[in-house]
Amino acid sequence: MSNIKGEKIVIIGGVAAGPKAACRVKRLMQDAEVTIIDEDSLISYGGCGIPYYVSGDVSDESELRSTSFHMVRNETFFQDAKGVEALTRTRALSIDRKKKVVLIEHVDTGVQQTIAYNKLMLATGSRPFVLPIPGADLDGVFTVSNLHKAIEIKKRIAGGKVTRAVVIGGGAIGVEMAEALTDLWQVDTTLIEFMDQLLPRIVDFPMAAMLATHLRDKGVTLHLGEGAAEILGNGGKVTGVRTARRTLDADLVIMAAGVRPRSELARESGLQVSAMGAIVVNERMQTSDPSIYAAGDCIEVRHLVSGKKFYAPLGSLANREGRVAGDNMAGIPSVFKGAVGSFIMKAFDVCIGATGLSHDVALAEGYDADVSLTAPSDRAHFFPTVGQVVFQMVFDRRTRRVLGLQGFGPMGDGILVRIDAAAALISTGATIDDFGTLEMAYAPPFSAAIDSINAAAYVADNICEGRLRKIPMASFLQWMEDFTIQPDWVALDIRHPKEVGPFVDKFGGERWLGIPYNEVRARYQELPADKTMILLCDAGTRSFETQSFLDSVGLKNSLVLSGGFNVVRKIGVDWYPQ
Amino acid sequence: MSNIKGEKIVIIGGVAAGPKAACRVKRLMQDAEVTIIDEDSLISYGGCGIPYYVSGDVSDESELRSTSFHMVRNETFFQDAKGVEALTRTRALSIDRKKKVVLIEHVDTGVQQTIAYNKLMLATGSRPFVLPIPGADLDGVFTVSNLHKAIEIKKRIAGGKVTRAVVIGGGAIGVEMAEALTDLWQVDTTLIEFMDQLLPRIVDFPMAAMLATHLRDKGVTLHLGEGAAEILGNGGKVTGVRTARRTLDADLVIMAAGVRPRSELARESGLQVSAMGAIVVNERMQTSDPSIYAAGDCIEVRHLVSGKKFYAPLGSLANREGRVAGDNMAGIPSVFKGAVGSFIMKAFDVCIGATGLSHDVALAEGYDADVSLTAPSDRAHFFPTVGQVVFQMVFDRRTRRVLGLQGFGPMGDGILVRIDAAAALISTGATIDDFGTLEMAYAPPFSAAIDSINAAAYVADNICEGRLRKIPMASFLQWMEDFTIQPDWVALDIRHPKEVGPFVDKFGGERWLGIPYNEVRARYQELPADKTMILLCDAGTRSFETQSFLDSVGLKNSLVLSGGFNVVRKIGVDWYPQ
Repeated sequence: MSNIKGEKIVIIGGVAAGPKAACRVKRLMQDAEVTIIDEDSLISYGGCGIPYYVSGDVSDESELRSTSFHMVRNETFFQDAKGVEALTRTRALSIDRKKKVVLIEHVDTGVQQTIAYNKLMLATGSRPFVLPIPGADLDGVFTVSNLHKAIEIKKRIAGGKVTRAVVIGGGAIGVEMAEALTDLWQVDTTLIEFMDQLLPRIVDFPMAAMLATHLRDKGVTLHLGEGAAEILGNGGKVTGVRTARRTLDADLVIMAAGVRPRSELARESGLQVSAMGAIVVNERMQTSDPSIYAAGDCIEVRHLVSGKKFYAPLGSLANREGRVAGDNMAGIPSVFKGAVGSFIMKAFDVCIGATGLSHDVALAEGYDADVSLTAPSDRAHFFPTVGQVVFQMVFDRRTRRVLGLQGFGPMGDGILVRIDAAAALISTGATIDDFGTLEMAYAPPFSAAIDSINAAAYVADNICEGRLRKIPMASFLQWMEDFTIQPDWVALDIRHPKEVGPFVDKFGGERWLGIPYNEVRARYQELPADKTMILLCDAGTRSFETQSFLDSVGLKNSLVLSGGFNVVRKIGVDWYPQ
Repeated sequence: MSNIKGEKIVIIGGVAAGPKAACRVKRLMQDAEVTIIDEDSLISYGGCGIPYYVSGDVSDESELRSTSFHMVRNETFFQDAKGVEALTRTRALSIDRKKKVVLIEHVDTGVQQTIAYNKLMLATGSRPFVLPIPGADLDGVFTVSNLHKAIEIKKRIAGGKVTRAVVIGGGAIGVEMAEALTDLWQVDTTLIEFMDQLLPRIVDFPMAAMLATHLRDKGVTLHLGEGAAEILGNGGKVTGVRTARRTLDADLVIMAAGVRPRSELARESGLQVSAMGAIVVNERMQTSDPSIYAAGDCIEVRHLVSGKKFYAPLGSLANREGRVAGDNMAGIPSVFKGAVGSFIMKAFDVCIGATGLSHDVALAEGYDADVSLTAPSDRAHFFPTVGQVVFQMVFDRRTRRVLGLQGFGPMGDGILVRIDAAAALISTGATIDDFGTLEMAYAPPFSAAIDSINAAAYVADNICEGRLRKIPMASFLQWMEDFTIQPDWVALDIRHPKEVGPFVDKFGGERWLGIPYNEVRARYQELPADKTMILLCDAGTRSFETQSFLDSVGLKNSLVLSGGFNVVRKIGVDWYPQ
């Protein structure tokens, strides 16, 4: 440990990484003088809880600023309990790295002063990206950037001033805000997303499509592939949002178009900052000036799959990074190696999660990426609380490395189980084979004897080894909309005849063949050799088994619909019989 | 792949590993002749589901033998759907390894025949350990060994013939059966366990004690440290169980005293078998005869923490091992590296899980083992569905390697999240530092910004580095029963004065000091320097912070009660005020 008596530690930013580092370093060096500087009056809050405060799940904003033992984390708390001075309503104007002083200004008085440091930490966080469109500054247009905004949003809704809302942006915060407005307050809510799917770059098409269907089922109007061109107003107040295709009435607009690092102070001080504006740090959270540390939403970190630096503004990472910064400021050489970008979200009655790279991103990064889409039971299928989940595992065909995992299922912790286990393995460079033998604890109330994560790896293995030939879900859905695009395709539905009947009735026996799974070995000679057979069942498992058999008798003209009807039904299609 | 046309694969044992391997090898080599031999009439069932069948959660035994698409896995199913012949009611008598034939006997007819193999697999499973005590063969004494026994147990209960039951054995099956009898059928149930805690060797004292308290709260009578000396009967029927301390009336006795590998056939065939009777296999599941494979409850596997071979009779491992055996019989060089013994269990309204080594086992294995006991919130503490969990992380002080993790909390998948993530890391040899920065997905409905697994690692880190000095939970509880054993100890309770008051009233201001957490920095001079102060709060977190501060002012005479009152309350003590 560096043992300079009364070392001065100054931390700029008091939301997540800052307070975490401040308290850690103080515990490690009780004789240090630790000061947090923040321009806001409210500090050390759970920003990720804002949607739940707006929804009413969290009744008072002070809960977001409280400890688990119900003390509000204000200036007094930091002083008395932590021995840390928190200067709120105080702005850091500039850093003199040679003299090691920070020039600060008290927001309310305008009084300026300098504060000396031995170690400085930047935890300046992020700011919401405000779309450069007309009307963005109208009254009633909000970003979800801090507690004050959240308080104001909730006040307006609770005051009955909001009947129609438009959420701009289909990322996590946009979806969470849409849920908050719709579910708890019955606000007529429309969400628009510029990209053609929700959660772009986080999850791939099938997962995003299932989420979209669930949101629509719950009453959220979605317009995908549609950006906001203008925010409309009247007398300074918002009245609506115009897109390329329509005008949406609104008395509240939530702009949730992502965040950008707040790194002006770092850049102006001559610290190294990335092209997109994130502060560059090493594994010990040191900036290009070894006396200055940075952590949280203002930095970039290494992606543990791609090895590249990326921007991961997540409260959980901010806390972990903050602790590492605190250690290092106290002379303990802890390291933060990077992140895989794990993500989990509640959306009404469902849960969606992801870790590592999505298929889209992996392809863009140059991997020989493929996916296994599976739709198993989430616990022993005979257990009463059984539900159904969908996983998409992303892997590299050449190296067999698992690059990512996405999951969708009923609200609960079941998806999280697999996302977190996958994240733990992915960060070590694990392969499909490691995932196949990954030991997941089993008892019927919790899981299946072959856990869904193992099953996903088994399918990936079969794909990699050329034992499973599949058709992408998107291609199948396209074909179902228009058979003429692949006139030589035919469905081979191996489910129970009762399930198959309505499909044969609707699409015709030429297009839709039905042979039950357990009769294929006896009846395969009825099958066409001159058409491509799309093998259909509920999850894809029986289809794969059937393909293995058909291949062995020379019928190599089949493709498996991985995920099967379990996924099709969750995506929702208008051609489904009945 | 080995491509002998029509290769003969014979698999002895048809419950879990056997069918899994059979179907896998057949899919990989459709022209192979695959035969399963089992002496039972019922095959391919979820044995772990038996307690839920007995309880009534699963209404019919056939559900345990069905696929997720509701087909019963009987001989016809295996033949038609899988192309695998299942010879039921057929016993394997001996193996002639030179001639590569198995002598089999049809149980019903006594007819014997030989069946030739190119590859043979032993999936002979386990048998329950029957205590060598008088009365073990009485009518009404059951092991939980197969579906027939389960059917008979349920028939007796449903027929109103059971009013008082004794379960012998406090392992997972014993506890699950006690729950099934008590919760669904209101049978007056007593569980006795020879060791002084439930789940011995799986979890350590605090976890077992919390589970015991919950079982007692739910109406199960527990006698720990008390073995069955004799099973009593009248007219051939069971009437009770006698222990060294008491006689318990019973019309049903469940003997759940563990299982032993069934390996007679392997031993008689000259295959290598361990001292405790488990078949020895390599990572490709080959026995000492390379043409003979083995998997499931009859084998031993490598422990991925200790590196030693151990016996892990779990259905989930059986399935994974079976797939690897299937691969290798088809010429694919898959490997099964071993296991960490992950465990998860429902017990009424709680869940308990573990992975890796317990503290007791780690000490016995010679590790410099210590534990961090933590009791955090299971999700953001401001989220309405927040619950409280307890984790015990086991680690090696010298190498900082994490050896194991145990968790206890409300029923749900929250404990599983951490057990599975820990298992994934532990099997790679991960250290406390890897656990500290392990990326767990965060959103308030699912987790805390600093996940409980990270928090457990932080505490372990502080212990390892000598920054946190603690008192074991058991020592504290002992002292609370008798202050005279440590007359120079004094409690320093740093919770809210309202919480502390009743304790001071009950135990006296000499023994029980109260200074609120956030006043310690101002009032530490009131504290005694000549006594050992036991720092008490709800979770242990505030106590650690306080210890850090007290140390810095020269008061190095404190010990933290890790886990704090959150654990004390769950263990249940009779001295708790009110």
